[in-house]
Amino acid sequence: MDDRTPGCYAVIFTSRRTEAPDDGYETMADRMVALARAQPGFLGVESARGPDGFGITVSYWESEEAIRAWKHHAEHVVAREGGRAGWYSAYITRVARLERAYAMGDPAKAPETATEDT
Amino acid sequence: MDDRTPGCYAVIFTSRRTEAPDDGYETMADRMVALARAQPGFLGVESARGPDGFGITVSYWESEEAIRAWKHHAEHVVAREGGRAGWYSAYITRVARLERAYAMGDPAKAPETATEDT
Repeated sequence: MDDRTPGCYAVIFTSRRTEAPDDGYETMADRMVALARAQPGFLGVESARGPDGFGITVSYWESEEAIRAWKHHAEHVVAREGGRAGWYSAYITRVARLERAYAMGDPAKAPETATEDT
Repeated sequence: MDDRTPGCYAVIFTSRRTEAPDDGYETMADRMVALARAQPGFLGVESARGPDGFGITVSYWESEEAIRAWKHHAEHVVAREGGRAGWYSAYITRVARLERAYAMGDPAKAPETATEDT
């Protein structure tokens, strides 16, 4: 399916956005995804946010060490401070170890390219 | 923070909705959440779907046994068949064991009730 196999780690970040258009959030979020992709041990990221402002982002990492390194990345620390100060009204970060996975197609791809693989 | 403590399990369900309004999806989804809440070992559920149809639902469970029982629940099996047949163009289910969590407030609550707890 992909390289997010059992034994890798998922960081589940659930958050509620404050009601503040044009506060620089989108630019920061895009930058953080680009930065994360460049980190050693990064395996992938998925994100969804509904119209009510509640969102879930799950990033996948090869190891706890990779997660720790990303957590202490300078720019990421700055972004997190911003998140605490204003972009989010609340958030929870959960770190979990992947046990198993099963799929039909790939939801990260556009529908027309998804194929059944179960 | 809540009872989703280290050692419990998260089921990370990422999916892409087909473009089919009024196909009964919302009714089924609401019913599944209500059913899940009534299952032994259920700890919580969080869900977000963006305007592009990509969504993430994370449910939390006390044990692998609780997840298995829910997987084999008759109505859930029927709903899953429907998901395969039409509601989703693709999905991935990942089961992960929670290692740790840290929070600011509770993103599941409305912003005005969220309080800092870090």
